[in-house]
Amino acid sequence: MARHFHELLADLKNRLVQMSALAETMIADAVRILVNRDDGGAAGIRQMEIAVNRMQVEIDETCFTLIALHQPAATDLRFILGAIKTNSDLERLADEAINVLNKAERLLREPPLTTLDIVPRMAAIAREMMRDSLDAFISLDTAKARAVLLRDDEVDRLKVEVTKKLLAFIAADPSTVTRAMALILAARNIERIADHATNIAENAIFVGEGRDVRHQLDK
Amino acid sequence: MARHFHELLADLKNRLVQMSALAETMIADAVRILVNRDDGGAAGIRQMEIAVNRMQVEIDETCFTLIALHQPAATDLRFILGAIKTNSDLERLADEAINVLNKAERLLREPPLTTLDIVPRMAAIAREMMRDSLDAFISLDTAKARAVLLRDDEVDRLKVEVTKKLLAFIAADPSTVTRAMALILAARNIERIADHATNIAENAIFVGEGRDVRHQLDK
Repeated sequence: MARHFHELLADLKNRLVQMSALAETMIADAVRILVNRDDGGAAGIRQMEIAVNRMQVEIDETCFTLIALHQPAATDLRFILGAIKTNSDLERLADEAINVLNKAERLLREPPLTTLDIVPRMAAIAREMMRDSLDAFISLDTAKARAVLLRDDEVDRLKVEVTKKLLAFIAADPSTVTRAMALILAARNIERIADHATNIAENAIFVGEGRDVRHQLDK
Repeated sequence: MARHFHELLADLKNRLVQMSALAETMIADAVRILVNRDDGGAAGIRQMEIAVNRMQVEIDETCFTLIALHQPAATDLRFILGAIKTNSDLERLADEAINVLNKAERLLREPPLTTLDIVPRMAAIAREMMRDSLDAFISLDTAKARAVLLRDDEVDRLKVEVTKKLLAFIAADPSTVTRAMALILAARNIERIADHATNIAENAIFVGEGRDVRHQLDK
């Protein structure tokens, strides 16, 4: 029974890693379409989202079964509850990739507005945060998790910068408003991806140290 | 032991109801500041957020303890796992009230732009969805939960309508861009509140029917 439990737990970890890798590919592909204006990969991204959604339901069921049938010890239980939250964040993060894709597709139907290099830079940081936060969660590497939390500010700063630039675009030429707005919202979708990575990093610290670091500023 | 467990479970439900009521007040107050341009209640909203954050941490710990010490039966376990997710949604929904407040405060420093009645209408529906979804979750009333899911489309429709109107404002007079953008983003924050209520309604159906209704369109 114990051996079986640890196999199931290893399988749960593998599936979270697979789900995260899929979501990361979705983000990279959606941002590529946004920047390069070539929608070749759009159908593939939507297929990946279906796979991510299916994985979310399966992972939730696995977590339920692990607790119901195996009554795990405190540390394992904390990990499984953290996995339920991480699973939600991974799915919502994949949703944000679809939101970026929707904006990229809308922009493809109009003349190009600008090649702001800030958006792909934001996306690169967000993807790195995703990868590191999931690694940190799986291996309970709380130092790595804390490093993720620090990078969230950089993404927020870039979002403010890109928004200011695009608002100036609109003020100078109001005919750009729809396109500039789509880019502003895409930047906010990427910011949310970084927020979900931050949540996953907080889950890692919660499980690894048995400490809740959310809302630390309140104290 | 069993009696003690059911007292703890009843206490968990009470605290979710209290947290939801607090978050709903935050939203109502933030939207009132946005619409009436009177920031008298801003400090109170920020105090409420601190209380919501503390409740989130306590509810998570209660759920952990309930499972670790009482090894609940399948139905109760499903409810507690649903409560962990509902707890996250309530906290993020309160965050969106703060996001609305931030935009309202920014707008207060500038001349009034427009009195769009769509934003408070969206907020009224979102609050009703919140209340009904939490009721549905606590009482496992899946019919009520399904009714919440249907109302999400109305909020999305109103968001599209208000965004179009504000984009037209900007196109006609680009000097309105910063203010119009703040209103567009506030409408999106309210849309997210409705999204979190939808998530809670899905949790209610998942617990009540043991069925996962998320991603039903994929099948």
